[in-house]
Amino acid sequence: MINTLAEPGKIFFITDENIYQLHPEKFSGKKLIVLPPGEKFKKQSTADDVILRLIEMEADRDSLLVGVGGGVITDLAGYVSSIYLRGIKCGLVPTTILAMVDACIGGKNGVDVGVYKNLVGTIKQPEFLLYDYTFLTTLPKKEWINGFAEIIKHACIRDEDLFIQLENSSLEELIISPLLVASLIKRNVEIKYNIVSRDPLEMGERRLLNFGHTLGHAIENIYHLPHGHAVSIGMIAAAKLSKRLSGFTQSGLEKLSSLLKKYQLPTELKMDIEKVWQILIMDKKRSGNQMKFILLHKIGEGIVKPIGLDELSNLLKELN
Amino acid sequence: MINTLAEPGKIFFITDENIYQLHPEKFSGKKLIVLPPGEKFKKQSTADDVILRLIEMEADRDSLLVGVGGGVITDLAGYVSSIYLRGIKCGLVPTTILAMVDACIGGKNGVDVGVYKNLVGTIKQPEFLLYDYTFLTTLPKKEWINGFAEIIKHACIRDEDLFIQLENSSLEELIISPLLVASLIKRNVEIKYNIVSRDPLEMGERRLLNFGHTLGHAIENIYHLPHGHAVSIGMIAAAKLSKRLSGFTQSGLEKLSSLLKKYQLPTELKMDIEKVWQILIMDKKRSGNQMKFILLHKIGEGIVKPIGLDELSNLLKELN
Repeated sequence: MINTLAEPGKIFFITDENIYQLHPEKFSGKKLIVLPPGEKFKKQSTADDVILRLIEMEADRDSLLVGVGGGVITDLAGYVSSIYLRGIKCGLVPTTILAMVDACIGGKNGVDVGVYKNLVGTIKQPEFLLYDYTFLTTLPKKEWINGFAEIIKHACIRDEDLFIQLENSSLEELIISPLLVASLIKRNVEIKYNIVSRDPLEMGERRLLNFGHTLGHAIENIYHLPHGHAVSIGMIAAAKLSKRLSGFTQSGLEKLSSLLKKYQLPTELKMDIEKVWQILIMDKKRSGNQMKFILLHKIGEGIVKPIGLDELSNLLKELN
Repeated sequence: MINTLAEPGKIFFITDENIYQLHPEKFSGKKLIVLPPGEKFKKQSTADDVILRLIEMEADRDSLLVGVGGGVITDLAGYVSSIYLRGIKCGLVPTTILAMVDACIGGKNGVDVGVYKNLVGTIKQPEFLLYDYTFLTTLPKKEWINGFAEIIKHACIRDEDLFIQLENSSLEELIISPLLVASLIKRNVEIKYNIVSRDPLEMGERRLLNFGHTLGHAIENIYHLPHGHAVSIGMIAAAKLSKRLSGFTQSGLEKLSSLLKKYQLPTELKMDIEKVWQILIMDKKRSGNQMKFILLHKIGEGIVKPIGLDELSNLLKELN
């Protein structure tokens, strides 16, 4: 299939050292760029390095760039493919739960600028996504935990049945049940795909997918948190705001907190609220003096609510 | 007009030190980023700096970025606006002949990567173009010369009458004739606009606009040539190839050479053909072993001709 998109000599793979060491056979005989792993390399200078390698390997406008990895790699591959030679083709092979259910779907890509997550990037749909579940056999447990933050997010904003299913299951059970996991991934891909295909440029409904991410992004890089941990803490904060502003119940909040703990995600963080606030106001969802914040009406039903920055600041201080 | 695109507090201007020193009144009271002038700053690290300034000034997704300057500034403004926060609005105010007739039209933007011109960038149409001819009153003569390389290019590929008009005029006459220049700019904007509006993504006809630019781009940064000089030398090389490959006449070649000289553009360069070749093969118009080269059939009629790299290499060596 891939060879219908580009000649074999014009297909360039990007992955990270972890994936390459665990699955060298997948890259045998391929033109390959191996990057150091981790969010801290999701930055412009890494994109610059990838571009220099593509020049060295004489990648031209008919080339295809394939990112094989977690969200860092799929975001970098998508971003570089959208600016190199003003845009070349791109394919993504997500290797983590998080990338499979979230990062690789919908065309958003980007790099961080200092502590600001995804401040630079584009929206460009990849030519293909390829799901190879054998990568999950070597996925570290902390990456499973990360991925479940996004799965729980999907349940919160759109799918109460999924929330109940997660309550009745556990991380340990899922890790050893490939068929269950495959069907769970499929369900989550459908949730995200349905939302982004109706609103590719995030003019409305797609904003729901940012549930937990406004505070989450603000704390992720200053406290060096795994993305799922940051989103988990962000979801609890957003659920508390929802109690104040959108009729979300105490019982809903407790259920969410229990579910996150069940999947070994943190729900609290001692934070320097002034420092966090400075990052938060640069969030892409801010528009002048308002932030389009994602709240829950109830479990399974997210809503977008513009909150004035002054009010938001006061509320966050109260919650902390 | 501009205030219908963004609130006044959300409009951010980019210009360079030359423009700012010559026309400080145009920027009075505006949020402004002033960059050092010159092609050597058209690179990712300058884009990175602009992004840091936009963060400092809290530019959000509803912001408008306005580039006021020559091609370097309009390319940088277009590029940054397409990646900052995954894309914000952009307006361009070209201040040079070259930017007015060429760089700011059609949405191509970009930065250089080392010696490779515009290797990174996107295609994104600006929200508006604003032509303010008072900037031309302070345009240095070398910049007039630069701009006429693109005007002569337009004449060569599409408009024999324009070619004759240029033969019957002169740079000195035009510099002191604002009305003549305004009508000349208008005619050139129409030529470029008609081509790019029919082929925004450069799948066919738009390639004609690269006449003189394949060799031109390859020599520009290694010999530190002004863009117009590089294109002028590139047009003569392409015209010589056209004599060999597409029936262009010796008399046509001589007319082109005379016209370029009349507008004080160089037609020859002693070059290290091996070094140039290494840059040339990374041109965005290369596709595997072929380069889509722009030739002339006659003055006023450009054609796109795929040339094998081996043949092209031999031809360029013969010409040198």
